[in-house]
Amino acid sequence: MAAAGFSCSAADLNPLLGANSTAAAEYICSGFDAVASKFVDTGYAIDNTYLLFSAYLVFAMQLGFAMLCAGSVRVKNTMNIMLTNVLDAATGGVFYYLFGFAFAFGAPSNGFIGKHYFALHEYPTASFDYGYFLYQWAFAIAAAGITSGSIAERTQFVSYLIYSSFLTGFVYPIVSHWFWSADGWASPAGSDLLFGSGVIDFAGSGVVHMVGGIAGLWGAFIEGPRMGRFDHAGRAVSMRGHSGTLVVLGTFMLWFGWYGFNPGSFLNILKAYGESGSYYGQWSAIGRTAVTTTLAGSTAALTTLFGKRLLSGHWNLTDVCNGLLGGFAAITSGCSVVEPWAAIICGFVAAWVLIGFNKLAEKLKFDDPLEAAQLHGGCGAWGILFTGLFATKAYVNEVYPGQPDRPYGLFMGGGGKLFAAQIIQILAIVGWVSVTMGTLFWLLHKLKLLRLSQEEEMAGLDLTSHGGVAYEYTNGYAAEHVQIYHYESGQCNFSAWFLLDFN
Amino acid sequence: MAAAGFSCSAADLNPLLGANSTAAAEYICSGFDAVASKFVDTGYAIDNTYLLFSAYLVFAMQLGFAMLCAGSVRVKNTMNIMLTNVLDAATGGVFYYLFGFAFAFGAPSNGFIGKHYFALHEYPTASFDYGYFLYQWAFAIAAAGITSGSIAERTQFVSYLIYSSFLTGFVYPIVSHWFWSADGWASPAGSDLLFGSGVIDFAGSGVVHMVGGIAGLWGAFIEGPRMGRFDHAGRAVSMRGHSGTLVVLGTFMLWFGWYGFNPGSFLNILKAYGESGSYYGQWSAIGRTAVTTTLAGSTAALTTLFGKRLLSGHWNLTDVCNGLLGGFAAITSGCSVVEPWAAIICGFVAAWVLIGFNKLAEKLKFDDPLEAAQLHGGCGAWGILFTGLFATKAYVNEVYPGQPDRPYGLFMGGGGKLFAAQIIQILAIVGWVSVTMGTLFWLLHKLKLLRLSQEEEMAGLDLTSHGGVAYEYTNGYAAEHVQIYHYESGQCNFSAWFLLDFN
Amino acid sequence: MAAAGFSCSAADLNPLLGANSTAAAEYICSGFDAVASKFVDTGYAIDNTYLLFSAYLVFAMQLGFAMLCAGSVRVKNTMNIMLTNVLDAATGGVFYYLFGFAFAFGAPSNGFIGKHYFALHEYPTASFDYGYFLYQWAFAIAAAGITSGSIAERTQFVSYLIYSSFLTGFVYPIVSHWFWSADGWASPAGSDLLFGSGVIDFAGSGVVHMVGGIAGLWGAFIEGPRMGRFDHAGRAVSMRGHSGTLVVLGTFMLWFGWYGFNPGSFLNILKAYGESGSYYGQWSAIGRTAVTTTLAGSTAALTTLFGKRLLSGHWNLTDVCNGLLGGFAAITSGCSVVEPWAAIICGFVAAWVLIGFNKLAEKLKFDDPLEAAQLHGGCGAWGILFTGLFATKAYVNEVYPGQPDRPYGLFMGGGGKLFAAQIIQILAIVGWVSVTMGTLFWLLHKLKLLRLSQEEEMAGLDLTSHGGVAYEYTNGYAAEHVQIYHYESGQCNFSAWFLLDFN
Repeated sequence: MAAAGFSCSAADLNPLLGANSTAAAEYICSGFDAVASKFVDTGYAIDNTYLLFSAYLVFAMQLGFAMLCAGSVRVKNTMNIMLTNVLDAATGGVFYYLFGFAFAFGAPSNGFIGKHYFALHEYPTASFDYGYFLYQWAFAIAAAGITSGSIAERTQFVSYLIYSSFLTGFVYPIVSHWFWSADGWASPAGSDLLFGSGVIDFAGSGVVHMVGGIAGLWGAFIEGPRMGRFDHAGRAVSMRGHSGTLVVLGTFMLWFGWYGFNPGSFLNILKAYGESGSYYGQWSAIGRTAVTTTLAGSTAALTTLFGKRLLSGHWNLTDVCNGLLGGFAAITSGCSVVEPWAAIICGFVAAWVLIGFNKLAEKLKFDDPLEAAQLHGGCGAWGILFTGLFATKAYVNEVYPGQPDRPYGLFMGGGGKLFAAQIIQILAIVGWVSVTMGTLFWLLHKLKLLRLSQEEEMAGLDLTSHGGVAYEYTNGYAAEHVQIYHYESGQCNFSAWFLLDFN
Repeated sequence: MAAAGFSCSAADLNPLLGANSTAAAEYICSGFDAVASKFVDTGYAIDNTYLLFSAYLVFAMQLGFAMLCAGSVRVKNTMNIMLTNVLDAATGGVFYYLFGFAFAFGAPSNGFIGKHYFALHEYPTASFDYGYFLYQWAFAIAAAGITSGSIAERTQFVSYLIYSSFLTGFVYPIVSHWFWSADGWASPAGSDLLFGSGVIDFAGSGVVHMVGGIAGLWGAFIEGPRMGRFDHAGRAVSMRGHSGTLVVLGTFMLWFGWYGFNPGSFLNILKAYGESGSYYGQWSAIGRTAVTTTLAGSTAALTTLFGKRLLSGHWNLTDVCNGLLGGFAAITSGCSVVEPWAAIICGFVAAWVLIGFNKLAEKLKFDDPLEAAQLHGGCGAWGILFTGLFATKAYVNEVYPGQPDRPYGLFMGGGGKLFAAQIIQILAIVGWVSVTMGTLFWLLHKLKLLRLSQEEEMAGLDLTSHGGVAYEYTNGYAAEHVQIYHYESGQCNFSAWFLLDFN
Repeated sequence: MAAAGFSCSAADLNPLLGANSTAAAEYICSGFDAVASKFVDTGYAIDNTYLLFSAYLVFAMQLGFAMLCAGSVRVKNTMNIMLTNVLDAATGGVFYYLFGFAFAFGAPSNGFIGKHYFALHEYPTASFDYGYFLYQWAFAIAAAGITSGSIAERTQFVSYLIYSSFLTGFVYPIVSHWFWSADGWASPAGSDLLFGSGVIDFAGSGVVHMVGGIAGLWGAFIEGPRMGRFDHAGRAVSMRGHSGTLVVLGTFMLWFGWYGFNPGSFLNILKAYGESGSYYGQWSAIGRTAVTTTLAGSTAALTTLFGKRLLSGHWNLTDVCNGLLGGFAAITSGCSVVEPWAAIICGFVAAWVLIGFNKLAEKLKFDDPLEAAQLHGGCGAWGILFTGLFATKAYVNEVYPGQPDRPYGLFMGGGGKLFAAQIIQILAIVGWVSVTMGTLFWLLHKLKLLRLSQEEEMAGLDLTSHGGVAYEYTNGYAAEHVQIYHYESGQCNFSAWFLLDFN
């Protein structure tokens, strides 16, 4: 006999009962139908609760970026970099609503670009609800934030406005379409998979981090280093950010938000793996993803702590924070499909990747105030490869179901096809972002819209473009009237801001 | 035949089955009863999870307020304003528990004031659980926080303690009773609706923002501007806050928390619209509310960016932050019942409302250090009107069900009754808050409890009332012993705090 | 007749129906079985959503600790203390994964120590999922953070690394095993309960706060006070932290995170109390726990405000923040089993306990820069006793079910057995932590690894161990070249860091 399940069928039940068996069957089945419908409602309520709060966490990363960036630049450019972070979220809100989301997820579409849901037209659908839009918006604004770090302290504000809109509204959505839309040419979830595998970039080591990092690489390369970053002999001069507390605040907020970024990328939590009724399901995979994320970041932080101690002789907090974030950027690709012990390897290598790329950048006189190209680009690329090496069979099939014999990690016995697809992802992202963003930055450079004048760079953006500096630590009324005290000496003529306290 | 649904009835099923049909029917129905009960449990678990975490987010806004306020005042009053923010939460906790919640939601009651649940007596009930209390407490403390911004930098601490308790414990709860309790005279959910409509103030552009803003308006008006805010010729002198990073930190935390404030105001998420089993339900409306909130704030931020650039010549971060918050304050009323595109209009206008009120305030020599009266009062009022213009028929009926022919937005073809009710809300709030808080501030003024002495205002509250300044940026041991260095010059005699670094 | 419930039995239903009654019964029952399984999935999804987001909130407390600690130390040790906070989380991540979690919860085990799940081997199980590990990790790292506050500003970094690993990986897990693992000798949930009661330390006033506080007590005692903390006459010299804004930021983040700490300790939310289908269930108890937490903290803050005003003459923000946290530390033990009104008593007493212990510390020339021993140790101990006095019968039986006649609070008529068990907890924690951590600190002291040299302490850890100070508030390019200006006077020869602004 067929089992009823939730879809109780009166036609099946009818012959089974005596008397007015038709009515009895209808009666019973209408009960099961109502139960099934109620479960549908319940599922939407749970999954949307899960997705919305994850989206809020991802949004909180924007606060993290703002504080990390602010703390990592010199005080004279603090307002500038924070304004770019606020605007990433705001312009992202408008542009991603108007067309970014449509380019990324407007299904049905071709493999290159989406084409529905402009301005959320005919939305929501059975597949996509508003929570999904919000979640994807929060991701989109993260990419632009990464790039703004690379070109900090020397870029005209108008250039920022141009590249940020272009990146959030076009370049990034296309990439997310390729790898995350079921229609994308490299999707791991469609029917005709690249190398029979598709690319596994679960939460976006490539889609988000490499895109932002490679864009920043081109911007920083075309602009050249900040004034004074390398001395006459070509030696690097440290340009410390102005606030370690802001760096730590930003790092912890990013860590906090990453729990929305990685585990949240499952999009829903109410999903049984295999049979219903088991203790192991998508909720376990989500928890495991939070654990792999934690372990990769933690290991990268510790590796950086001891690595830099060996290399530089002291315990460097800022480096530990960057190492931690490098571990997170790396695990973001494979977080859902690797074992916790593998996450430790991921983080360990990520720390050395970042240290290595930072050494290389210094040698090449490449100046990225936030190490964003090295961190998000470099560690992001490592993360993509790592997934191709360590993804386990069981987890890949749970997270990307329906293709029983699909490839998985090379080191786990899954063959080289996934690894090959991962390499294709790196090449595709580097190519696409270089062509689009590299060209854009070059055009802005040729139009003299990209870099500040020497005078503006010396004075700082806050004074020249944003109407004032970030801090007024003078102590009150009196100081406001005598804020600048001119002191005449034999050698130099300058004004200093004193913390005055008239008695 | 009647359908069983969850409420399986043995009396109905009994005649349908043969043999020991009574027992069979009981057996089957007991199963369905258990399912129905389990769904009740499940619903409470989901909805409380949703509500509690929303409450936590709203609470996080208090951190946002504290940082925004701290950054917006001069350094000498930093500890003072933050202490008021901490105490808003703490006194709010005790007073709202003792009677605020009872005044607001103590049902059954009359239309003016609630009268049950003092100190959570005979609580929880089938209608209200602890999560609801916590959520409403987090709202109550927000109102007091708004007002403290308006009267910052010149108010005696004892006055703050008095008005804050009065506002959180009495003035605000009454207003929330009117518009949010089903018993309130202007509720949109009762049976006898004002103009057949009731007021739609979904998350409180009026109940929270206007109440806080109008209270601040009276406080700031009665106190008068800070010393030096307008010069001898009556021209406004800019009094910049002491930290742009704190302003941005606060703004982002408020944005983050607003996702608890607006979408959270649905109170529950497991609710089908129309038939059960559809993909579209309250979870969609909640997501849409998060989207309208995001779009209104984003648009207001961008409008302010370009508007102020035209007016003042630079890209002003602080203004962008305030514009963003003005967009949020405006959309808070209608966030759940308007289309995303309308939210863009809401934000665009809100930005200009804030710019206009700020111009007006300067002309009238009105000094509000946080622009709180202009922002929360002005943009809040605009938001209330906006709802009366743009609320859609479908959404109004989903969010406030049970009255099929109720009015909706004037511009959406819903007639003028909702708009009229919204105007009544503005008048009622302005009237009630003016009578209560205006009188209170006037009394405090007459009793010489309101404003600081000139000496205290010059020195700053931190030194005179709170035992010390907010920052000690001296670099270590040596500096502590020689912190203040006296320098004798021909013209002036002052002491400066140096960052000393003995060699 | 037996009721079917979810477990529909074909054997029971078979004789009841005519015709092909076997098949009919199987058909109907398979429906109910599927419903039951679906409810299992649904329950895991809800409970894991609840637990994971609670874990994220608890993690956010680490950000709170970092900011609170940074703001409470002098500027020269800011980077040091923040690095310890970052590393608490990172080393905690690795060590708790490798063996800490196994020592704490590796069941089945003996009463003293767990012995399974090393490196999450054979994990997850039907009892424990990854979310539970993450939640417990977030708790473990909090304990180490408390201790780092006590020994701040004078401890060698290598000592920090040693004690932190030992505390997170061994000392703390053992204590959590005793009181929170069902196998623990003092668990309130096992079969053979201490005094027929077991210890009720719901969210860890003892397990977390006292452990961290007592460890800090020994560290601070063995190290002795910071240089200059007591003058030649033995009078205490105030050593104010360097940033009040960071203190408030940290305090609010801790408050925010405490909603994950206390209500989250229920671990799941979908649980009916008594019969299924009632509005009152674990979701209500969770909400009530959030309310008791809020009230205890709020009352402690207000008590401290007025208490310190009486004692010191001004309204002290930092003291209010510490009082608030003392209230939280105290209610953490009994938050789930006491009435809201009792939480007010808890907070009121906690404030005075903290004031008292601070007075005592000053008398005994005990120097704890964060008041961590007094606050977490002292208020934590009071909270444990408070639970033994005020735990109500109904709530104890709901939260710790299955033992109908178990003891409860002494003042609530529940006899002295729970109170006696609570005293045992205090003694056990003081004993265990003293033996382990006291010995460790003493050994480090003997090996000259504990305390900094005088020169290092004067210069500050940031310069001597971490490669630079936390802030660079100079205003831009020019300042970077002339940052240190030497001024020659008759009396002293010093260099000052000016905020230069060349014209």
